[in-house]
Amino acid sequence: MEIKRINPSPRWSDATVFNGTAYFVEVADDPSVDMLGQIRQILTQAEDSLLTVKSNKSRLISVTIYVTDFANFDVLNREWEAWLPQGCAPSRACIKAELADPAYLAEIAFIAASDQDE
Amino acid sequence: MEIKRINPSPRWSDATVFNGTAYFVEVADDPSVDMLGQIRQILTQAEDSLLTVKSNKSRLISVTIYVTDFANFDVLNREWEAWLPQGCAPSRACIKAELADPAYLAEIAFIAASDQDE
Amino acid sequence: MEIKRINPSPRWSDATVFNGTAYFVEVADDPSVDMLGQIRQILTQAEDSLLTVKSNKSRLISVTIYVTDFANFDVLNREWEAWLPQGCAPSRACIKAELADPAYLAEIAFIAASDQDE
Repeated sequence: MEIKRINPSPRWSDATVFNGTAYFVEVADDPSVDMLGQIRQILTQAEDSLLTVKSNKSRLISVTIYVTDFANFDVLNREWEAWLPQGCAPSRACIKAELADPAYLAEIAFIAASDQDE
Repeated sequence: MEIKRINPSPRWSDATVFNGTAYFVEVADDPSVDMLGQIRQILTQAEDSLLTVKSNKSRLISVTIYVTDFANFDVLNREWEAWLPQGCAPSRACIKAELADPAYLAEIAFIAASDQDE
Repeated sequence: MEIKRINPSPRWSDATVFNGTAYFVEVADDPSVDMLGQIRQILTQAEDSLLTVKSNKSRLISVTIYVTDFANFDVLNREWEAWLPQGCAPSRACIKAELADPAYLAEIAFIAASDQDE
């Protein structure tokens, strides 16, 4: 069984798909903005990533959310819940962690169901 | 292939199952107690979650353990090892992280084999 | 479907394989050395782990990298990119976190494609 990789760079792939399961990680493309702006970017970027792996936001399996400050937790949750289709929430872990760029306020690792192999 | 979701809320599902693999995350339902109490709750809750996805604690594949203080590491490990059936330990990562509720002392993300699809 | 476990101890298995997907976590066997030494150990150990699950470093699906200090980020990335075969990078998350042994400077959780079941 082959691994499909979207935009492999020397450091990471934008997404990988194996055995019907897609893996991708998002941080805001423009981290100069506040949490609201970053979360909206991350969720929009995630929709694009889901499209590239023949999935969509109703097919999330698991997410791990890293935030740098729980003061941003309410914004995260409000945007997250508004974005998710009803009845389609994945399993979710959420922890506080510093991220590779101090401007990043959030990073989300997604696992989703994909029709890439079919 | 469909995703099965256990108790989907607007924010997360208690568990998801896809392609024979189950994903769920536990924090103590009652975080007013110490690490010993929280870990025991988490492991008991995990048994319930495993049951809902037609799995059990002998079928864990991978866990990621977040603890807020490594002073609690010995308690975690003692309870963890006492709980796991012999020869059935999953792959395990363990890191220190602050969690969404300051009362939480641990959060565990589980991946398990499931007979849900069969 | 069975889970295959490599060297199960009471606390963890060195690797698990389920449904063609392998999970394993590495920290440096000898953490007395600096980041360069630890990363090289981790990547060498990962090659051994990949071998035991009938995989190799061209078949990584996803990694989660925990570093204790982003001052070591450049060393990590240089070694990581030198180690990965071209065009084979996995999805990658990277966060800062304290690890179970204060001597550990990095911990990497790997998910890889495996031919173990075939």
